[in-house]
Amino acid sequence: MDVVEFRPEPSQYAYTFGGVAPIREVEPGSVLRLWCDDAFGGTLRSTSDLASAHLRMGFLNPQTGPFAVRGAEPGDTLVLHLVDLTPARDWGASTLVPFFGGLTGTDRTALLNDPLAERTWIYEVDRARSTVTFTAARSDLSIDLPLAPMLGTVGVAPAYGEVRSSLTPDAFGGNMDTPEMRAGATCYLPVNTPGAIFSVGDGHYRQGEGESCGTAVEGAMDVTLIVDLVKASQAPAPLWPRLENDDEIVVVGSSRPLEDAWRISQVEMITWLTGLLGLDRLDAYQLLTQVSLAPLANVVDTNYSAVTKVSKTLVPGLRPLDGLHADLRERARSLT
Amino acid sequence: MDVVEFRPEPSQYAYTFGGVAPIREVEPGSVLRLWCDDAFGGTLRSTSDLASAHLRMGFLNPQTGPFAVRGAEPGDTLVLHLVDLTPARDWGASTLVPFFGGLTGTDRTALLNDPLAERTWIYEVDRARSTVTFTAARSDLSIDLPLAPMLGTVGVAPAYGEVRSSLTPDAFGGNMDTPEMRAGATCYLPVNTPGAIFSVGDGHYRQGEGESCGTAVEGAMDVTLIVDLVKASQAPAPLWPRLENDDEIVVVGSSRPLEDAWRISQVEMITWLTGLLGLDRLDAYQLLTQVSLAPLANVVDTNYSAVTKVSKTLVPGLRPLDGLHADLRERARSLT
Amino acid sequence: MDVVEFRPEPSQYAYTFGGVAPIREVEPGSVLRLWCDDAFGGTLRSTSDLASAHLRMGFLNPQTGPFAVRGAEPGDTLVLHLVDLTPARDWGASTLVPFFGGLTGTDRTALLNDPLAERTWIYEVDRARSTVTFTAARSDLSIDLPLAPMLGTVGVAPAYGEVRSSLTPDAFGGNMDTPEMRAGATCYLPVNTPGAIFSVGDGHYRQGEGESCGTAVEGAMDVTLIVDLVKASQAPAPLWPRLENDDEIVVVGSSRPLEDAWRISQVEMITWLTGLLGLDRLDAYQLLTQVSLAPLANVVDTNYSAVTKVSKTLVPGLRPLDGLHADLRERARSLT
Amino acid sequence: MDVVEFRPEPSQYAYTFGGVAPIREVEPGSVLRLWCDDAFGGTLRSTSDLASAHLRMGFLNPQTGPFAVRGAEPGDTLVLHLVDLTPARDWGASTLVPFFGGLTGTDRTALLNDPLAERTWIYEVDRARSTVTFTAARSDLSIDLPLAPMLGTVGVAPAYGEVRSSLTPDAFGGNMDTPEMRAGATCYLPVNTPGAIFSVGDGHYRQGEGESCGTAVEGAMDVTLIVDLVKASQAPAPLWPRLENDDEIVVVGSSRPLEDAWRISQVEMITWLTGLLGLDRLDAYQLLTQVSLAPLANVVDTNYSAVTKVSKTLVPGLRPLDGLHADLRERARSLT
Repeated sequence: MDVVEFRPEPSQYAYTFGGVAPIREVEPGSVLRLWCDDAFGGTLRSTSDLASAHLRMGFLNPQTGPFAVRGAEPGDTLVLHLVDLTPARDWGASTLVPFFGGLTGTDRTALLNDPLAERTWIYEVDRARSTVTFTAARSDLSIDLPLAPMLGTVGVAPAYGEVRSSLTPDAFGGNMDTPEMRAGATCYLPVNTPGAIFSVGDGHYRQGEGESCGTAVEGAMDVTLIVDLVKASQAPAPLWPRLENDDEIVVVGSSRPLEDAWRISQVEMITWLTGLLGLDRLDAYQLLTQVSLAPLANVVDTNYSAVTKVSKTLVPGLRPLDGLHADLRERARSLT
Repeated sequence: MDVVEFRPEPSQYAYTFGGVAPIREVEPGSVLRLWCDDAFGGTLRSTSDLASAHLRMGFLNPQTGPFAVRGAEPGDTLVLHLVDLTPARDWGASTLVPFFGGLTGTDRTALLNDPLAERTWIYEVDRARSTVTFTAARSDLSIDLPLAPMLGTVGVAPAYGEVRSSLTPDAFGGNMDTPEMRAGATCYLPVNTPGAIFSVGDGHYRQGEGESCGTAVEGAMDVTLIVDLVKASQAPAPLWPRLENDDEIVVVGSSRPLEDAWRISQVEMITWLTGLLGLDRLDAYQLLTQVSLAPLANVVDTNYSAVTKVSKTLVPGLRPLDGLHADLRERARSLT
Repeated sequence: MDVVEFRPEPSQYAYTFGGVAPIREVEPGSVLRLWCDDAFGGTLRSTSDLASAHLRMGFLNPQTGPFAVRGAEPGDTLVLHLVDLTPARDWGASTLVPFFGGLTGTDRTALLNDPLAERTWIYEVDRARSTVTFTAARSDLSIDLPLAPMLGTVGVAPAYGEVRSSLTPDAFGGNMDTPEMRAGATCYLPVNTPGAIFSVGDGHYRQGEGESCGTAVEGAMDVTLIVDLVKASQAPAPLWPRLENDDEIVVVGSSRPLEDAWRISQVEMITWLTGLLGLDRLDAYQLLTQVSLAPLANVVDTNYSAVTKVSKTLVPGLRPLDGLHADLRERARSLT
Repeated sequence: MDVVEFRPEPSQYAYTFGGVAPIREVEPGSVLRLWCDDAFGGTLRSTSDLASAHLRMGFLNPQTGPFAVRGAEPGDTLVLHLVDLTPARDWGASTLVPFFGGLTGTDRTALLNDPLAERTWIYEVDRARSTVTFTAARSDLSIDLPLAPMLGTVGVAPAYGEVRSSLTPDAFGGNMDTPEMRAGATCYLPVNTPGAIFSVGDGHYRQGEGESCGTAVEGAMDVTLIVDLVKASQAPAPLWPRLENDDEIVVVGSSRPLEDAWRISQVEMITWLTGLLGLDRLDAYQLLTQVSLAPLANVVDTNYSAVTKVSKTLVPGLRPLDGLHADLRERARSLT
C-alpha cells in the first residue's frame, strides 16, 4: 500500500470544502498518515485564553488536505476508513464562543439577549489511563472522562461548484460532529467533482451527542486512514454521508430544523436498507421504526446533524458493498 | 405495601390527561398492578385491519387510570417506579395511519401529497425466546427482534386546567414514546393539581428511537409499578419529566421544532446537574457537552420528544433524592 | 335580531377554550354586545407595573364567554361577524414578560441566557384623533400611532374533549393574534362540540405583524358581533379558522415551526379556492403562488400563527357561502 | 453618469455568488442596463415543457454579472438602486419541479411520498394592459393579473471565501425572492470581498408572498439600476440585506426554520431603528412590536426568507444615510 504522510504548515490549512487546490493526489488504496490541528488552530491553551480574543471567523476548523483521489469522478463513492485516531497533544480545549452554541441566541436564532459569559476549559490528557480531565471553573469538581477520539469534520468538495465553510455540515459531509466518526469506522461520501477533493480535521478527544455548547474537547490529532474508491458502475453513490463500523450501519443527515436532519438520515437509511435487504420501501420504513437508533450529532452548527443507526446483529444481512468494510479492517490490521 | 389491581373495561378508558375523574385514590408507596390496552384499543388484529377503517380520532391511546395520589399537591413530585412490563397478548401491531408519521405530510406539516399507502404489520410474540417477529409484507423477509417492552404514555393532569389528548407529550409527560420508559426506570413528574391524577398506557413491545412511522410494536401490557411522592418541602419539582435507572439520569423534553425539544431536555438536565453536583450553570453546560447522550424519542407526535441522558458511571455523584431510586429498586425486588 | 349584552365580572372570566360552562345560550342571528378585559386583567396600569409582579400564569388572556349557540353541532360552521371594536379604556399597556416573546429565550426555546430586562409601556388613547401614543422609556421619543383595534383571541371549544389555555392558538381558533381580526371581518370556525362554546377576548388597540415582544397595545374592548351558524348539510366546516372581509379571504394556520403554520394556512386556502372556483388542486397551488399575501400574525405564542390572504379584486369569484359576508355587513349596518 | 450595458451570452451566465470572475468593473455612481434570463434559462416555453426534462441542477437561476465595484472593500455597503424592471419577453413560465416547493416533500423535508405531478403554466404578457394571464390547466378558468415585476436574486460574493448557489439566499443577499425587490427600491448589501462582486437575476413578472410552489411567473427582464457605495468610514455595513423604498424601510432575513429568518429580520431592524431614531434596544423592540409588517418572501428555497418592514409615515424620522434613497430616486428620474 502507498503510504502518504502529511503534516500541514499553518499556511497550508484549508478552511473550506471546495475552492482549495489539492495538496497532493493519492491513489485509491493509499494509507494516509496525517496530523490535524484543533478547531481553534491551537490558539486556546489556557483557561484565560478566551474565544473573542483569539478566534477569527474564516479561520476556524482548519482542514488537513484537500487530497485528490486519482480516478474519482462524479457519481463514484469515496471511501475513507479511519484506522487510528490518536491525540497529538497532552491537552484539549473547549470554550464558549459568544452567540454560538445550542443553548444561547446565535446569529441565526437572533435574539436580544446578551451573550453568555466567555469561558475556556482545558482538559489534561492522561495517555496511560486513557482519560481527559474535566475541571470545573467555579467549584472544586474534577472528573476523569474516557478518551474517545473522533473527527468532527470529514468531507469532499460540494456539488455544483459551491464552496462551503469548514464549519458547515451538509450532503458533502463536512462538520458533522458525530461521535460515530471514530477509529474503526468506514465513511462513504458522494463524489461531486473529479478527484473528490477531500479533507479531514477538527479532532475531538471526546464529545457528547449534540455538542451542546458548540465545542467538544478540541485537540490536535494524528490520523491514519485508508482511501478507497467505489466506481459508479459498481454501486450508486449515497446521497448523504454513510458510515459503517463492525456493529452498525449509520447515516448522517444535516439540515435545519433538526427534524429535517433526522428525516434526511431516515430516508437515506431506508434507501440503503431496501438495497441491502431487497425490501419494499414501506416495509423498510416499518422495520426502521422498530430498530433504528437516533442519537444526535450536533445542534450547534450552521446545519444540525442527526444520525440514524441500524445494528447488524439486530438485522441480519447488512453487508454493504460486498463486505468492503471487513476488507478494510483487514487491511488496517496489517498496518499495525 | 398496598397493592391495587385494576383492569379497565373499555368504557373506563381515558383518552385525555386531565378532564377525567380518578378511577381511585392510592396511597404513596402503593403497588399498582395494571393492564393497559394497546394504542389502537386492540382493533388491529390482522394485516388486513387498516387504520382508516378501525381507528377513530379521540379514541386512540386509551389510558389506564387516572389515579389520584393521596396528599399530592401542586409543587410536589410524583414518583412512578416501573417494576415490570410484560406483554399481555401474543401479538403486537404496527400500522401506517394516513397523514401521520415522521416521513409523510401530516395535519401540521400540511402538504399536497397523497397519503402513503395504508398497511398493517402483525408481530408474533415468542415469550420463550423473548422476541417479536417482523414479517415484511412485500417480500419473504422475516426477522426476530428482541422484546423490549416500554410504555409510550405516562403522565399527570396538566397545569392551569388544561386537558390534553393522550396523543400529546408535554411538560406533564404524556405520549413521550421514549424507550427509556421501561421496567427498572423511575419516573419523576411535576404535580400540577391536587392528587396528581396520573395515568399510563400505550404499551410498546419494542420501538426504535424516533418511532419513525408513528406506531411502535403496539401491544396490551401488564404493568406493575410503585407510586411514591416527594413533597415540595423536600425537593423542588422538575419542570419536565425526569427518569432514572441504575445507570443513568434522563430528561425528556417535548416541543416543536425538534431542536426546542432537545433544548428543553438539555436545560432541565443542567438544572438537575447543578443541584446534584453543586456546579455552576456554565460548568454544567460544559460538562454536559462532553458527556450527554441524546437519543430521540418520537418525531411523530403533536410535540416531538428528545432525550438527554448522563451516565452515573461517567459522572460520579448522581444520586437524586438521597437514593430514592435504589430504594424503589429494593422495594421492587421484594415484590417478585 | 336578539341582542345580548354581557360584561363579565372578574370571577366570570374564562381562561380556557373548553372546560368552562357556557355563560348563556344564544340564537344564531343574535347580536352580542360584550366587554372584554385586556390580556393582563387590567393589572398593568403604569410603567412601574411590571409583569413578574402582577401577572399570574393561568390567569392571563381572560375570555368573555363562553357562549353556547343553539343548534350548533360538530361539523357545522360557527360564523362570527365583528361589527364593531371600540377601546373601552383611555390607555393600553404593553410589557416584556420574562422568558416570553419572539426575540428572547423562552420556556420552549430553552436557553441559558438571562431574561431580558422587564419594562412596561403605557399608551394613551386619543379618541378624537384615533391614536395611541408610544412613549420611549429611555429617550424623549414619542410617536402617535393610528388606533387599529382587533381581537387577539376568538375561539371555540377544541375537539376530542381537549381544554386549551386562552394563550394558545390552534385549529379551534384561540390566541391567533392576527390584525385581520378587526371590525368588518367575518370569522368562520369549525364546531367541535354541541353549542360550539365560543368566547372572545384579548383586545389590542394596535399590533404589528408577528407581535414581536409578545404583547400588543393591550386594552379592554367593547365588542359588537353577530353570531350565525352554517349547518354541515349546507357546507363543510373549515379545518382551520377562516376570515373574510370586503376585500379578501383569509386563513390562519397555527403550529410550530413557523413554516408549518404557513403550510397549514396555504393548504386550507387551496381547499377553499378549489371549492369556490372549481379549480383542480395543483391549479389552485399555482394560482396561490402568484397571488397570495402571507403576513405573519404571531411568532410568540405556544403555537405560531401565519396568515394566507387572497384578494377578491385580484381573483374574481370569491364569494363564500353565497355571499353570507355581504349579508352580515348589511345586517351590521342596520345596527348603527 | 457612466452607463454600462450588458446582455450576457448563455456561456457567460453565472450560477453562483462568489467563485466567478467579474464580467467587468464599474464605478460607484454608474448606471447599469442589463438583461437577465429567467430562472429556467428560457427552456420552459410551453405547457408541455416539464421541469424534469429541461432543467439541470447547477444550471438554474442564471445570474447577470458579476460586476466588481471599484473601491469596494469589506466593511463597506453596496448600494443598488433599481430604476426600472421591464419584462423582456411576452410570456412568463411557472412550473412544479419534483421534490421542490413549499407544499411537498423536498430533499430537506425528506419524506417517502411520491413527488407531486409535474405541470407547467405559461403566462401571456399584455404590455398595454400591464397584465399576465393565469390559465388553469384542468378547467376553463383564466385570470388576468397585474404585472408586478421584481428580481428574485440580488447578491454579492459571500464572506470567508464561500461560494453559494444562485438558488440560495443568505446574509449576502442572493435568492431572497421578495416582492420588495422592485423598481423604485434601493438595496443595501454588506461588502465581503474587494469589489463586492455582485450579480442580479431571476426576474419575476409577479409573485405571491412565500412563492408557494417554488417558482413565480418567471421571465427574462430588462433591468436598469444605479450602483453606489457607502464606505465603512461613513456608516457601518448592515449584517443582512436592507431595502428602502419611498414608503418603507425593509430587512430580509434568510434561514431555517422560518422563525429564525423572521428573528434575523427583526433584530436587524431593531439595530437599524436604534441607529436612525436614537432609541434604546428594548424601546425599539417595543415600537417594532406595534408597527412592523412581516410578509413572507419565500418558504421554498434552501433558506427561507422573511421580511420586516416599517412605514416611514407611521414612524417619522426614518431617513437612512442622509437621504441617499431620495437622492437615488432623483438620479433615476434624470435617466428617463
